Amino acid sequence: MRDAFHEELTRTREQLVEMTRLAGSAMARATTALLDADLELAESVIAADEAIDQMQRELDQTALDLLARQQPVATDLRVLVTGLRMSADLERMGDLARHVAKVARRRYPESAVPPELRSTVLQMGQVAERIVAKAGSVIAVQDVAAAVQLEQDDDEMDSLHREVFAALLGGSWEHGIEAAVDVTLVGRYYERFADHAVSVAHRVVYLVTGEWPVPQQASPTA
Amino acid sequence: MRDAFHEELTRTREQLVEMTRLAGSAMARATTALLDADLELAESVIAADEAIDQMQRELDQTALDLLARQQPVATDLRVLVTGLRMSADLERMGDLARHVAKVARRRYPESAVPPELRSTVLQMGQVAERIVAKAGSVIAVQDVAAAVQLEQDDDEMDSLHREVFAALLGGSWEHGIEAAVDVTLVGRYYERFADHAVSVAHRVVYLVTGEWPVPQQASPTA
Repeated sequence: MRDAFHEELTRTREQLVEMTRLAGSAMARATTALLDADLELAESVIAADEAIDQMQRELDQTALDLLARQQPVATDLRVLVTGLRMSADLERMGDLARHVAKVARRRYPESAVPPELRSTVLQMGQVAERIVAKAGSVIAVQDVAAAVQLEQDDDEMDSLHREVFAALLGGSWEHGIEAAVDVTLVGRYYERFADHAVSVAHRVVYLVTGEWPVPQQASPTA
Repeated sequence: MRDAFHEELTRTREQLVEMTRLAGSAMARATTALLDADLELAESVIAADEAIDQMQRELDQTALDLLARQQPVATDLRVLVTGLRMSADLERMGDLARHVAKVARRRYPESAVPPELRSTVLQMGQVAERIVAKAGSVIAVQDVAAAVQLEQDDDEMDSLHREVFAALLGGSWEHGIEAAVDVTLVGRYYERFADHAVSVAHRVVYLVTGEWPVPQQASPTA
């Protein structure tokens, strides 16, 4: 009975890793859709979010079933409850990718990102893809060192986010209010995406070490 | 033993209701701080968020202890897991109130809200206060009808949020980029606050009826 239980836990972990892959792919494609004003790609990201939502619902149901049937204690209990929280983070990351894609769709056939911010947004997309891939590795092998390293990616995201604000508020913004609104929202979506990835990694660290890594940093926009 | 367990569940519910009260008070005060450019009030909201965070940590610890010690099944299990999720929503609502207060602080001694949007933002603050108070009632008495009613407040928040965008994008915005950025973020904070309140109410409905009320509506900004 316990063996079947641990097989289920392993399967849950694999599904969480798969969710990181889906969320990362969604954000990577949303970034391309945004920068290239690619409507078809934006639509595909928006449509694909349902698969992430569905995976969360399945994971939640499995976790509740396991809690009820197996009545796990100690580490097994913590693994299950942590899994519930990580799937919520990952589902939200999928939403944020969808939000970016919706900005791309709303501004089509224009790109919502002015030329001087293309490089910054491209990098935000790359950091987002990298940070969620690392979160996936952290889940897969419970790698505490990688979880710490991932904070550096989050710092990089914060730094890129500050670049966005510098471009907006530096006094030389020439793209009007609509572009300013879009860029403000998009910047926030990337930053929140990274925050959730950090949260996922912290949860794994907490599971392994019993200690929460560091106080979560305040967002630079808030 | 079971009686002590249900006393703990009752206490958990009371603490969740208290969290709704704290989150509502924080958002009400943040709104005033924002509209009146009241730095002292903004600082007090920012400082008070720690109490909400602390309450979430305590609730989580209690829920994990109860899961481990009492090994609840069926309804009791669902109540505990739902409690974990609601405390996460409410903690996040506290964060969003703090974000609004930080915008007020950043723009002090000016107000971040231009005159033509004061009424809209005031109403957003009022709807936020009302919706979280209703969420508190829904938790307290598991009132499914009130949970449905609360959707109307969320619709009202969405409508106010659209007013913010109309003011920003209507072509007559005269307050520059910094104010546009602030108003964009503030609008999103209120909208997310209401979303989380709806989520709390939906969780109670799910607990009581076993069915998720309605698909969550897409945000008007995304």
